[in-house]
Amino acid sequence: MVSFSVGARQPAEASKDTWSMSHWSDTLPVPFGQRRDQVPRDHSIYPQLLEITLHLRQAMREHFVQLTSRQGLSLEERRHTQAIREKEALLSCLIRRMINLLQSEAASDLELQVPLPSEDSRGDVKYGQRDQLSGQPDPVPQLSDCEAAFVSRDLSNRGIDISVFYQSSFQDYNAYQKDKYHKDKNTLGFINLGTSENKLCMDLMTERLQERDMNCIEDALLQYPDWRGQPFLREEVARFLTYYCRAPTRLDPENVVVLNGCCSVFSALAMVLCDPGEAFLVPAPFYGGFAFSSRLYAKVELIPVYLESEVTVTNTQPFQLTVDKLEEALLEARLEGKKVRGLVLINPQNPHPFRKPLGLECRGRHSQTLWDEDVFLQSFTFLSKNKYNLHVIIDEIYMLSVFDESITFHSVLSMKSLPDRNRTHVIWGTSKDFGISGFRFGALYTHNKEVVSAVSAFGYLHSISGIVQHKLCQLLHNTEWIDKVYLPTNCNRLREAHKYITAKLKALEIPFHNSSSGLYVWINLKKYLDPCTFEEERLLYCRFLDNKLLLSRGKAYMCKEPGWFCLIFADELPRLKLAMHRFCDVLQEQKEALIVKQLEDAMRE
Amino acid sequence: MVSFSVGARQPAEASKDTWSMSHWSDTLPVPFGQRRDQVPRDHSIYPQLLEITLHLRQAMREHFVQLTSRQGLSLEERRHTQAIREKEALLSCLIRRMINLLQSEAASDLELQVPLPSEDSRGDVKYGQRDQLSGQPDPVPQLSDCEAAFVSRDLSNRGIDISVFYQSSFQDYNAYQKDKYHKDKNTLGFINLGTSENKLCMDLMTERLQERDMNCIEDALLQYPDWRGQPFLREEVARFLTYYCRAPTRLDPENVVVLNGCCSVFSALAMVLCDPGEAFLVPAPFYGGFAFSSRLYAKVELIPVYLESEVTVTNTQPFQLTVDKLEEALLEARLEGKKVRGLVLINPQNPHPFRKPLGLECRGRHSQTLWDEDVFLQSFTFLSKNKYNLHVIIDEIYMLSVFDESITFHSVLSMKSLPDRNRTHVIWGTSKDFGISGFRFGALYTHNKEVVSAVSAFGYLHSISGIVQHKLCQLLHNTEWIDKVYLPTNCNRLREAHKYITAKLKALEIPFHNSSSGLYVWINLKKYLDPCTFEEERLLYCRFLDNKLLLSRGKAYMCKEPGWFCLIFADELPRLKLAMHRFCDVLQEQKEALIVKQLEDAMRE
Repeated sequence: MVSFSVGARQPAEASKDTWSMSHWSDTLPVPFGQRRDQVPRDHSIYPQLLEITLHLRQAMREHFVQLTSRQGLSLEERRHTQAIREKEALLSCLIRRMINLLQSEAASDLELQVPLPSEDSRGDVKYGQRDQLSGQPDPVPQLSDCEAAFVSRDLSNRGIDISVFYQSSFQDYNAYQKDKYHKDKNTLGFINLGTSENKLCMDLMTERLQERDMNCIEDALLQYPDWRGQPFLREEVARFLTYYCRAPTRLDPENVVVLNGCCSVFSALAMVLCDPGEAFLVPAPFYGGFAFSSRLYAKVELIPVYLESEVTVTNTQPFQLTVDKLEEALLEARLEGKKVRGLVLINPQNPHPFRKPLGLECRGRHSQTLWDEDVFLQSFTFLSKNKYNLHVIIDEIYMLSVFDESITFHSVLSMKSLPDRNRTHVIWGTSKDFGISGFRFGALYTHNKEVVSAVSAFGYLHSISGIVQHKLCQLLHNTEWIDKVYLPTNCNRLREAHKYITAKLKALEIPFHNSSSGLYVWINLKKYLDPCTFEEERLLYCRFLDNKLLLSRGKAYMCKEPGWFCLIFADELPRLKLAMHRFCDVLQEQKEALIVKQLEDAMRE
Repeated sequence: MVSFSVGARQPAEASKDTWSMSHWSDTLPVPFGQRRDQVPRDHSIYPQLLEITLHLRQAMREHFVQLTSRQGLSLEERRHTQAIREKEALLSCLIRRMINLLQSEAASDLELQVPLPSEDSRGDVKYGQRDQLSGQPDPVPQLSDCEAAFVSRDLSNRGIDISVFYQSSFQDYNAYQKDKYHKDKNTLGFINLGTSENKLCMDLMTERLQERDMNCIEDALLQYPDWRGQPFLREEVARFLTYYCRAPTRLDPENVVVLNGCCSVFSALAMVLCDPGEAFLVPAPFYGGFAFSSRLYAKVELIPVYLESEVTVTNTQPFQLTVDKLEEALLEARLEGKKVRGLVLINPQNPHPFRKPLGLECRGRHSQTLWDEDVFLQSFTFLSKNKYNLHVIIDEIYMLSVFDESITFHSVLSMKSLPDRNRTHVIWGTSKDFGISGFRFGALYTHNKEVVSAVSAFGYLHSISGIVQHKLCQLLHNTEWIDKVYLPTNCNRLREAHKYITAKLKALEIPFHNSSSGLYVWINLKKYLDPCTFEEERLLYCRFLDNKLLLSRGKAYMCKEPGWFCLIFADELPRLKLAMHRFCDVLQEQKEALIVKQLEDAMRE
């Protein structure tokens, strides 16, 4: 791992696998086999080099700002956050790219037979042969496998960025995809309690999808579609949302855009509401998929509004969202010169406690969930008002996954009047509520015709197969089946799985965040971390991974405090039991490792 | 339509609907109801204004460069190209945005009750009421409906760009989607011979898709996928391409990425191979979908390598692609400071003559399509060589749509060795060859592991439903049905439709470009244009549209010469006959209009 010596903490260690700044900040590495006074003859390469160098410098600056600007973290912690690791990989990659350019230039222009990197079947780049051809020392340090995979002679700068980000974000998910647990065929495979999926009603869905009405094949379904989503599906989505969101008046199909997944909708919104570098505020912890989506294309910054788990005088609830916190984050971002164009809210919010924030005034009746501290509504109303000119994106993807029967979900679409309806954009999809994330369906509902039109353009690259649009339409249309069969069964199973997992957590004395909706619980494992840092959190995560259990750690959700994990419980009982068995094993291992460590520390003192 | 007075041609006309430059280049329009010395108190708006102004200036510069740099076109022509119209709409939009900002600032800060634009149900913005509230003249010219739809108070700059581009590109297509011809239900609806679709085998496909093997619903298909494409489908694609492309060795599933359509694949390639503003060379005329795809996200310029229809000493074939033309375009682009990262080739090429350019050396045998002038191979080999460091993207989307039985298609993947296999990227999908564009399936095959990895990241936002991936796998797997039923029938029907359409064209004495593959013929209607300009081409296109016939005009394909239209003939005979009936009617109308015009001209002289 290439790392940079920053600060004065370990100056003596900046040797073998640590580059000193002078290696690359002041002088460019001289192409292998070339004297410094030999300048390549073709000058056309230099603008490219310059650009890469500038990109490099920019990446560097961001890196160091990141290193020094985070308060309340120790140096140790700062150096090991995921973002910094990524940036390091990117930096080493950019440097390598410069060197590659110089080398290839040297090879072609100066007619030196310098062997170019060869690729093996894994796509890793090998430089090993080079030393055999020359006695000169290699000016470039050897890269680890992980970094070498990011080295590129062919990708653009943004291509490298994307590749680095994808590999670091999806490495473990991809390992799970290749080696999934199966009760008969692969008992040693990965169990995934880290991806927010509802696997509890596969049987019901399979049955429903095999019914006769699902398999219609019409010509229009096989041909190029209306890019905004087929009219029949948009009509059905409007009807469905009118009914399940209890909208005071019929929702309009013309306000609906259908794309292949909620992240596609979010990405498209980020594209049309922000210019590159502009920002959305998002209460953190928040869904990691949004971070990936907003970076892939839109290059929009998601500024976390950090919520804290500890209850204090001002924070009367764990992970409490307040208007003050939002406003403070907004003003701070503005002071830093950031352009905040909107706010992203999840409704119902989790880990944000359900009862408190929710309870919107809907259809004139006051339900039992209406509380004095109607923070969600306050935040929403406050920030959608003209003062800050903010858009509000409301993600209601868990709206039908409320498993506590005493709670009623209140959609933003149920409000009699929205504070700023032209700047309120609601996202919903079937991935979580119907457990069919593989369908790739997401819908936008907005009164803003300009946004509808601009987001529709993205249907050209994010549309769903016609025959799937038909199936979705049939699925949403059958309210009787949904109300009488699917929802009661799903809620029942969610409740049972939640009961099982929370009982287990109680027995293990692991604090968790109770919730009455969604597919996951937030658990606090900080007692297993020593010291309680994000690096230790990462190591514990890896220990779970080594035991073929995929969890999500708080860091991936931009949680402010190390030690939190997100545990998806919406899985069938036998698999959940086995997962918890592995979970307990890991914690036992970790406990033993901590004891050994503490003993060693004590002996040293 | 807002237009700008450029050059000295019509200075006197720069009055009512023509803005003079001074309106906006030197001084900002003063907010309505505000004196020039009244500056809004909240200064936070000014950076935003400045940015929009800078964007505006940039758009302006591009506009004028575009106006003045195109050689060989008359001023009349230059002013009316589609690109310029778009730019004009964008400019007026940006200006309007500035004014909106100033107005809203004026309304809130200076407490002037200036009514903000109201939206009607069509999303058009109306400014009409304003004049009633004040006697002052409106400093802003009234916008047409079309432009007003692009006015935005909420969208980002790129959001406006995208919206403008989408509306101007898909307006007519969307009209067709809303009002499709149906032989019983809507006999007066649009017939679309402008979108490249094969509607000839809907019956076969419908039957095949209803077979038992298609309707498998497994848990894994309903859950989050492998973002690169499900392994079973990538394996099948590799097997399928090995077989149908006659690859010398088995293609590797690890080199396949599956996304929701070939345009998504193209867009992802543009993202990872180019940085914003960099370019690909594309022989023109070329598929308009690529232009839209590359602009939506990647912001990559497609530089047309203009091919000419006229046969000359150097152009021995109509629309002939030569190495010289490619190299010339490349060097010219470089001289202009453009960074060309690659070349996009279509194989088989249409209108580029089929026999000539094709004929790659495959599996050691020389087929009848091997000619001396193997231009395609030459171009491909030449440009993929290291000298220019270019990527080559080969679109083989029509590979199974060769309907002349005496011709054998030769895929780039059939070559024993690729000139630069790490920079050769092949795209294929089922939209054209299997007539199922509504499936949204596209595949990339590349040996470059870095490109595979980087493009895979885009699967996160461009994936296909699991159940559709299953259907595609079953479809591609059944080689027996494809070889014995589908392909012979499809080729037969393509041949018949082609025969019908070309006989009709001959009877009408309309020159056309003969082809032996693909779904369309290029026809030359320049004898119906007077003068022969792109503006007249557009007017003729509109006349077809008024008669509910959607065609593609050459301009949308970046054709260099006005008068060419692309006519998709892969439609069932009754609809094709009706379409040709409307076609003849329009040409008759046009002929009569031309005669009237010529008479009027003669009388004036």
